[in-house]
Amino acid sequence: MPPVAGRAAGDPDRADGPPGRPEVCVLGLGLIGGSLLRAAAAADRTVWGWNRSAEAVREAAEAGYDVSGDLPAVLRRAAAAQALIVIAVPLPAVDGIAAAIALHAPHCPITDVVSVKQPVADALATHGLDAHYVGGHPMAGTAQSGWAAGDGALFDGAVWVVAADDGADPDVWTRVAVLAEDCGSVVVPAGSAEHDAAVARISHLPHVLAEALAVAGAGDQLALSLAAGSFRDGTRVAATDPLLVRAMCEGNADALVAALDETLALLTTARDALAAGDGIADLAGRGHVARREYEHTRRSRIDGLQPGVPGWIEQLRDAGRAGGVWSCPDGTDLPDGGLG
Amino acid sequence: MPPVAGRAAGDPDRADGPPGRPEVCVLGLGLIGGSLLRAAAAADRTVWGWNRSAEAVREAAEAGYDVSGDLPAVLRRAAAAQALIVIAVPLPAVDGIAAAIALHAPHCPITDVVSVKQPVADALATHGLDAHYVGGHPMAGTAQSGWAAGDGALFDGAVWVVAADDGADPDVWTRVAVLAEDCGSVVVPAGSAEHDAAVARISHLPHVLAEALAVAGAGDQLALSLAAGSFRDGTRVAATDPLLVRAMCEGNADALVAALDETLALLTTARDALAAGDGIADLAGRGHVARREYEHTRRSRIDGLQPGVPGWIEQLRDAGRAGGVWSCPDGTDLPDGGLG
Repeated sequence: MPPVAGRAAGDPDRADGPPGRPEVCVLGLGLIGGSLLRAAAAADRTVWGWNRSAEAVREAAEAGYDVSGDLPAVLRRAAAAQALIVIAVPLPAVDGIAAAIALHAPHCPITDVVSVKQPVADALATHGLDAHYVGGHPMAGTAQSGWAAGDGALFDGAVWVVAADDGADPDVWTRVAVLAEDCGSVVVPAGSAEHDAAVARISHLPHVLAEALAVAGAGDQLALSLAAGSFRDGTRVAATDPLLVRAMCEGNADALVAALDETLALLTTARDALAAGDGIADLAGRGHVARREYEHTRRSRIDGLQPGVPGWIEQLRDAGRAGGVWSCPDGTDLPDGGLG
Repeated sequence: MPPVAGRAAGDPDRADGPPGRPEVCVLGLGLIGGSLLRAAAAADRTVWGWNRSAEAVREAAEAGYDVSGDLPAVLRRAAAAQALIVIAVPLPAVDGIAAAIALHAPHCPITDVVSVKQPVADALATHGLDAHYVGGHPMAGTAQSGWAAGDGALFDGAVWVVAADDGADPDVWTRVAVLAEDCGSVVVPAGSAEHDAAVARISHLPHVLAEALAVAGAGDQLALSLAAGSFRDGTRVAATDPLLVRAMCEGNADALVAALDETLALLTTARDALAAGDGIADLAGRGHVARREYEHTRRSRIDGLQPGVPGWIEQLRDAGRAGGVWSCPDGTDLPDGGLG
């Protein structure tokens, strides 16, 4: 198998599972991490995990999964196997996990499933782990949390963003993307900062608007009595655990503030026009066009782009911006062996 | 049958169908009026209608309904039958219809199905028609419009607000409420101004927020590619015809501006807290509580309240504010005959 252009070949004598499919070490077995453990196992990946909570470890072990509550031991195992480490803890816990990885498994490929990307990248860089890190974000979830809420089918058909940042290691990138595909997702490449700006618009902003709408409606019992479909749908995600909403929104504060400023400007203009008797033709027309555009959004397949060829990361970002989905071409020699 | 307290009995020799169930004259056969015509006919009410568009008249006639494009003739027929007139035209057309009613059928009971109540009440008062007018608003609809989009089951289980304003005629009130019940709806009494403030919060505000969210998301192709459930549900009603959104929102501008001001204050506070690094615990917590409150909203039956007894209209308003639903008690002698 030829080495990927621009990369030193790994050690061909190392046994780490099928080509491009290293063992997977999941740190954190909540809704997302626990679902990933199940999904990877169902895809015949060699996967094991760690969780801080002894109860979740017991439940996962009883369900037949290879799990432990001993973080140093799990990380030493990952180092020995050159496993792909998946950080699946909430953003505030990432720094502590990164410190442990730097101590016990500093040369492993690393990804994560946290809903914001730049703060995770920054935390890993602080611990000197950026060379082998490629962030990820499966755009899937429910209003539930914890191991018991996990579901091996959670990622089926979902978008899984794989970070396409300058300097990314193409072997790690491919391993992360192949894991996402093995879990049933479609891979959209995006720069970390672009990802954070995009999810601020289409995930965090909707949550904030839903909270505000729920509060504005609840001030009035008669209003709640009259509420029908538009209020029901517009407030649906306000049923989410407020701690999860805070973690998402506060972890992406800068991008969310920018999206909120744009939205506040739109709403203030509409408010002033209504108050002046001028109506809301502009907002209603633009909103309708925008919703139609969303309904007609189509994905395209990114063809013939091999991670590691010159300019690959910019090309991936460009393709992701245009709605492209990366998939590992059939017959591709996946990178195997250790990292250079 | 005893006359309702405080009302002179009508002419007992007039034949106008079952007690309390006068013939129904629907003016305007779009989505709501056309659905009402079908629903009332299905409930064995004697019902006929008028529409300005010859094509809708032809389609409705071909479907077997008693319809006409001759407004003066339809109104003279309503006057002769003392029919309950239902104004089912868009708000901008109400004034012209009221002028025609004042000319040809000034003594008929009148209701309407327009989505705002105070402007309709004001228009009818201008034409001297307020004495026999009781407004209505069935909280049902689709993103479609026109006769062909109508559906006799549209009002099944929906809330139908019947206006409870000082000076309302109890006989007319009962006739309107019974028509709403015959169409399958539950009757919520509310003052016109309170109704308008409530629907600003739970119908018009959600539409404006959906439009703004759609615009904020559509500025970025990557964002649309990543959009999942929260964006989909939060923008659903932005798919509505912008002309319908404008008609609703602009017809209720004052109440909507008040609801928007409250929402803008909530969003600005959250935005500033995020920018200052203080997070959104307050909004996320309040929004979650509010959504739960909405999910647990229950209706209660308003028992033993006979329209026309002293204080009935205040009692209806109070009961409606508390989530009460009026229904015609079994065995009640419904008022029949003409109006006093």
